[in-house]
Amino acid sequence: MLTVQNYALGEWVTGTGPRTDLIDAVTGEKIGDASSHGLDFKAMLNYARTVGGPKLRDLTFHERSLRLKRIAQALMARKEEFYPLSFMTGATRTDSWVDIEGGIGTFFAYASRGRREFTNERFHVEGPTEPLSKGGTFVGRHILVPLEGAGVHINAFNFPVWGMLEKLAPALVAGVPCIVKPSTTGSHLTEAVFRAIIETGELPAGALQLICGDARDLLDHVEEQDVVAFTGSANTGHKLRQGKAIVANSTRFNMEADSLNCTILGPDATPGTEEFDLFVKEVVREMTTKAGQKCTAIRRTIVPSGLEEEVIKAISKRLATTTIGSPTAEGVRMGPLASASQVRSVGESAARIRAAAERVYGNDDFAVVGADREKGAFYSPELLYCADPLNRLEPHDIEAFGPVNTIMPYKTLDEAVQLARMGRGSLVGSLVTHDPKVAQKVVLGVAPYHGRVLVLDRTSAKESTGHGSPLPNLVHGGPGRAGGGEEMGGARGVTHYLQRVALQGSPSMLTAITREWTKGAEEVKDTVHPFRKTFDQLQVGDTIITKSREITLADVEKFAALSGDTFYAHMNDEHARSNGVFEGRVAHGYFIVSAAAGLFVDPDLGPVLANYGLEKLRFTKPVYPGDTIHVRLTVKQKTAKDVPEGTIPQGVVEWDVEVFNQENEAVAVYSILTLVARGDAKAA
Amino acid sequence: MLTVQNYALGEWVTGTGPRTDLIDAVTGEKIGDASSHGLDFKAMLNYARTVGGPKLRDLTFHERSLRLKRIAQALMARKEEFYPLSFMTGATRTDSWVDIEGGIGTFFAYASRGRREFTNERFHVEGPTEPLSKGGTFVGRHILVPLEGAGVHINAFNFPVWGMLEKLAPALVAGVPCIVKPSTTGSHLTEAVFRAIIETGELPAGALQLICGDARDLLDHVEEQDVVAFTGSANTGHKLRQGKAIVANSTRFNMEADSLNCTILGPDATPGTEEFDLFVKEVVREMTTKAGQKCTAIRRTIVPSGLEEEVIKAISKRLATTTIGSPTAEGVRMGPLASASQVRSVGESAARIRAAAERVYGNDDFAVVGADREKGAFYSPELLYCADPLNRLEPHDIEAFGPVNTIMPYKTLDEAVQLARMGRGSLVGSLVTHDPKVAQKVVLGVAPYHGRVLVLDRTSAKESTGHGSPLPNLVHGGPGRAGGGEEMGGARGVTHYLQRVALQGSPSMLTAITREWTKGAEEVKDTVHPFRKTFDQLQVGDTIITKSREITLADVEKFAALSGDTFYAHMNDEHARSNGVFEGRVAHGYFIVSAAAGLFVDPDLGPVLANYGLEKLRFTKPVYPGDTIHVRLTVKQKTAKDVPEGTIPQGVVEWDVEVFNQENEAVAVYSILTLVARGDAKAA
Repeated sequence: MLTVQNYALGEWVTGTGPRTDLIDAVTGEKIGDASSHGLDFKAMLNYARTVGGPKLRDLTFHERSLRLKRIAQALMARKEEFYPLSFMTGATRTDSWVDIEGGIGTFFAYASRGRREFTNERFHVEGPTEPLSKGGTFVGRHILVPLEGAGVHINAFNFPVWGMLEKLAPALVAGVPCIVKPSTTGSHLTEAVFRAIIETGELPAGALQLICGDARDLLDHVEEQDVVAFTGSANTGHKLRQGKAIVANSTRFNMEADSLNCTILGPDATPGTEEFDLFVKEVVREMTTKAGQKCTAIRRTIVPSGLEEEVIKAISKRLATTTIGSPTAEGVRMGPLASASQVRSVGESAARIRAAAERVYGNDDFAVVGADREKGAFYSPELLYCADPLNRLEPHDIEAFGPVNTIMPYKTLDEAVQLARMGRGSLVGSLVTHDPKVAQKVVLGVAPYHGRVLVLDRTSAKESTGHGSPLPNLVHGGPGRAGGGEEMGGARGVTHYLQRVALQGSPSMLTAITREWTKGAEEVKDTVHPFRKTFDQLQVGDTIITKSREITLADVEKFAALSGDTFYAHMNDEHARSNGVFEGRVAHGYFIVSAAAGLFVDPDLGPVLANYGLEKLRFTKPVYPGDTIHVRLTVKQKTAKDVPEGTIPQGVVEWDVEVFNQENEAVAVYSILTLVARGDAKAA
Repeated sequence: MLTVQNYALGEWVTGTGPRTDLIDAVTGEKIGDASSHGLDFKAMLNYARTVGGPKLRDLTFHERSLRLKRIAQALMARKEEFYPLSFMTGATRTDSWVDIEGGIGTFFAYASRGRREFTNERFHVEGPTEPLSKGGTFVGRHILVPLEGAGVHINAFNFPVWGMLEKLAPALVAGVPCIVKPSTTGSHLTEAVFRAIIETGELPAGALQLICGDARDLLDHVEEQDVVAFTGSANTGHKLRQGKAIVANSTRFNMEADSLNCTILGPDATPGTEEFDLFVKEVVREMTTKAGQKCTAIRRTIVPSGLEEEVIKAISKRLATTTIGSPTAEGVRMGPLASASQVRSVGESAARIRAAAERVYGNDDFAVVGADREKGAFYSPELLYCADPLNRLEPHDIEAFGPVNTIMPYKTLDEAVQLARMGRGSLVGSLVTHDPKVAQKVVLGVAPYHGRVLVLDRTSAKESTGHGSPLPNLVHGGPGRAGGGEEMGGARGVTHYLQRVALQGSPSMLTAITREWTKGAEEVKDTVHPFRKTFDQLQVGDTIITKSREITLADVEKFAALSGDTFYAHMNDEHARSNGVFEGRVAHGYFIVSAAAGLFVDPDLGPVLANYGLEKLRFTKPVYPGDTIHVRLTVKQKTAKDVPEGTIPQGVVEWDVEVFNQENEAVAVYSILTLVARGDAKAA
């Protein structure tokens, strides 16, 4: 028997009082129990806020991301421990792979994005400097800082691992401690993975807590700096969203509810095309993976009028060969539902849909391999057909959270779009077509009602991750029925745990606060050339103003000859004048940038290792032969870098560059990115 | 008498049934009345969704922005009509300027940002392409599309014009039709400006509707594609947020509530410094502007312990010379509150704060200029002092929405930060200091509890827009008590009216949908060089692969001599090897980019006018003498441009450039931005 525990205030705690039984979905036998009674949720929230939060916020975005990576590595090394626990939930090996390794993959993805897309600081600077005044002495900038509350994650039963990890990853990168409250069903698996995370020792005390069992008064204690993220049924979500504490404190509440996701077969994807076969395969996969218990699974299958029969025939044929049974039995493609109560609930919902649809596939006498059909939570796939879907709400409104799917015909693309939208907000929709015009029309038509839209065709089929798979780099969530929330989406997911603050002040003040040089701030001039300083010696704001150089017609001629760029505006005075942009032959922009480097580079061997990029270059004024240029080069930002063993320790230095003409007008502005070796800050 | 009307279903309608009197805040006399009775709110919402929405969405972001600009110009031309109506609300000329011209300025700002920060399309592509597969046949991209519902704007009484325009501007740029419901108090002014907007004829039928009077069942009819934006008291906001339709449909609800904003005097800003004087001025300005009736006004004034008396003295002195009276009377600096009920409410709140604070300034016998004190809604500024603010909640919790302010001392910077945070979420906080270290500590300390933080010092003082002014390019809103919402903030404000959708598919499919070329998509090759095609003839995906060129050591030498860039990695084989990045002398990156132009440029006079910029350049592999390079140049995106009369019609063409070596490895990737003349698409 598994006694599922809670992790509260840094200790493993067995709940007291009434316990909830955990049942093996395959055998119907009790495998353990769980209870959250006896836990003081208010104290747990305070522990997260006052112990875990400060320690997480002591780390930078990069440091937190690195810990995520090490946790992911540790979990991956122990993954085989989790599979047997997953099988008890009814998940097959393939289903479990999505849950377990997909979840760990989300940690890896955030570990990498957290370092790539955030600054290596305790706050993140967002967007450009906003000029707020003519004279430039008053400017604005946005920064993102970690919220100082707790993330409260209420997860659904269908993905005990992924459901936890996809919410934790962005929260931990953000620096927000979390309390995980999985569905009690499947919590033995969540607890095992959670335990493995704690055992890595990578997270400071208070960073993570776990509640297995009843959520009771948990949400009554949330405050204004907390974030609640909920995945589950729309009804529960609506109730929680109206919670007194959530409303009174304007607590962020992110909801991701199951929805009536659809797939559309394009009119070009007729039987015989690769797309038709892809479509059939995808529909069956969505019905049978996790026995259809995915928030993102296809519930509505929208097909060209006239093709219904062939679609039904093809899907039914595949469904008939889907082996149902115990996840541990050979050849089984679909396991049981999560519980007997789910079997009842799915059956009831399917019956309600059947008020508007007929059953075109279903097998009351389905066989079960490796298990007792009567004891496990088994359910046969069920395909429905609704002949008049524009006028019946049931298939667009009633969700059977299992292997149940309704086929519905459309006459025109507009009608297909309309049907898709009748779901009133979905996590995902898909379209199978090889015709870009069909894709354009349908995708833009259904877009306002979706969080994600997949277009599948022969080109992408082999590598497609499929209709039902949320990915860490794309947003997951949808409007309306789907809850109106948004998770993941790369850096976006992290910002849900950050407060955006607009800063206003002088450029020097904002430079001091953001540690990114803002144009107009004090320029620090020094007798030592900045190329002679190491990464650690360089200071944000270090500046040189170079000497001047005349750009001659001979330079332009030589540059044209050397580069091969004999564009008319550089070579022919009359033609250059003719286009309304220039007043005569103009120097090559690339030559200005090259000559600027010639002016600011200190050539001798030193800590600057390489120039590896350039950003946001604008030629703001033409340079004509006879003009004289000079350059301001300023350290804009420094980012310490992790490098592999054996590589010179180094960091990225971004430089702000402005090239001026003899009138002190800017002719080119840009940033350059260099690698600079580290070295004692005091030696400068 | 003004009969304030409603604008519903494209008609001006006088409400029936019970009417609400509008009272002149200065004289206490009735100036008119308003009623929303008789309006069918459900029909109005449907009209917005089905008539206004589609027409707005037919326009591109740029087209909508241009209309905003013309509306702003028309309103500016008529602004003097609005001032007299504003005076009746109690607003002085200065107060009215903020409301009227500040509001119009928000339209101008969004007119400009809408064209600068969004594509000239009916949807907006957001962020980079997300690689989703190893082989590159399956990729992701996010787009933003207009929501297809209505914006429902519920505004507060204090800014009848700005309150309307700051919400309309981002919604209209987004393409979402709106229903404006101003506070009935002051609605005569809102109605006048609204009428002027309608009279411009710039907006399609259904784009805007107006409800003056009771909101009744308005929010009972919102759906999943609508957006509710509320500004007002926290209590009302909490009630609305729990509305059945809002919860059931996951309708977006943005709340901006008044909050207990604070200002902090830095320990360095002692009497005698410029900062001390700035601080006193700012506090008094915030207390008296709009008679303190601003969501952003300073309510809590946090000063170093020991300086309380001097601060109180200095503020009191200025307050004593603030002339109170009719906005139309000479010399008046502060008008009445908005209504007699506000006078009662502010008085009651101040009394409740006084349970924890003593009154240190207040004038029971204050004089009123140009009006009868007993008839108008006049209130004397009131300064309170709370000696023990860490242990008293009243001044952090009770808002007197008028010229009432509590001084509170702090001993350490940590204590100052703690006091600021006791407001439990504010729209704005400010800090007056000239010490960057103080700014760093305080700003990052208070940031999680604020939507905006202003640092004021001698450098920025002259140009500072002040503590209380939300600006279109910075976010406005705050966590917790302030409602947890976010408005404006440039492009961010527009996204509140857009649905973000993750698209997945093959690069060709995503190129077709987004009209932005995605790496891996089909390359369209043509016998005509793309530089010979006009803007209209060029197609997204048009590609040339250039011939090859060897990069010789002589080239490197010549380039070094011409540019002056003799950086060791280019000139000295041994030194180049020493830094761990290169295997020997490497060609200048700028030379590679220059030689690439030499390869892809078609030099003769033609439709390409100029190269004005370059983006996201990365040198992905070193090029050594002896390597041979060639280039792929592809049309990535086209943006039609508005140009002034007399300029060659033109557009921006962004090109995707990839430079390869002889092994077909990319050595440099970037985008270039060119101006290309327009011209018949068929002539190509």
